[in-house]
Amino acid sequence: MAEGNVSADELRLLIERIERLEEEKKGLGDDVKDVYGEAKARGYDPKTMRTIVRLRRMEKNARDEAEALLETYKAALGLG
Amino acid sequence: MAEGNVSADELRLLIERIERLEEEKKGLGDDVKDVYGEAKARGYDPKTMRTIVRLRRMEKNARDEAEALLETYKAALGLG
Repeated sequence: MAEGNVSADELRLLIERIERLEEEKKGLGDDVKDVYGEAKARGYDPKTMRTIVRLRRMEKNARDEAEALLETYKAALGLG
Repeated sequence: MAEGNVSADELRLLIERIERLEEEKKGLGDDVKDVYGEAKARGYDPKTMRTIVRLRRMEKNARDEAEALLETYKAALGLG
C-alpha cells in the first residue's frame, strides 16, 4: 500500500481486532493472578508455584524439541 | 499450611489450571501476531500499528482514571 493510501475503516477494524484480543489476554492474566491468590489462600506459596510452572514449561519445551528432532530424523531416514 | 503439608493432588490441579490459562494466553498472543501479519499482507506497517495500539491504550487509561476520579469526587460530595 502506498503511503497515504490508507483505508481508515479497514485500519480501524484491524486495530480493534487486536485490541479485543489484547483485552482477552489481559483477562486471562487476571484469571492467572486469581488462581495464585486462591492457592495462597489455601496455604501454598505463589512464588514457589511460579518456579514450578517455569520448570515444567522448560521441561515441556525440551521434550517437544527432542520429539521434533526425532521426527525430523525419522522422516529423513524414511522411518514410519 | 505448614511446610511439608502439601496435597499433591490439590497442588497439581492448581498448577494445571494456571498452565491452561497460560496456554490460552499464548494462543491469543499468536492470534494477535496473525492479525499484524494479515495487516502487513494488506500493506499496513505493523510497527506503526503497534504504536497506535499503545497510544490508544494510554489515552484509554487516562480517560478511565479521570472518570474514576470524577466518580470519587461526586461520591464524596453526594452528587448523583
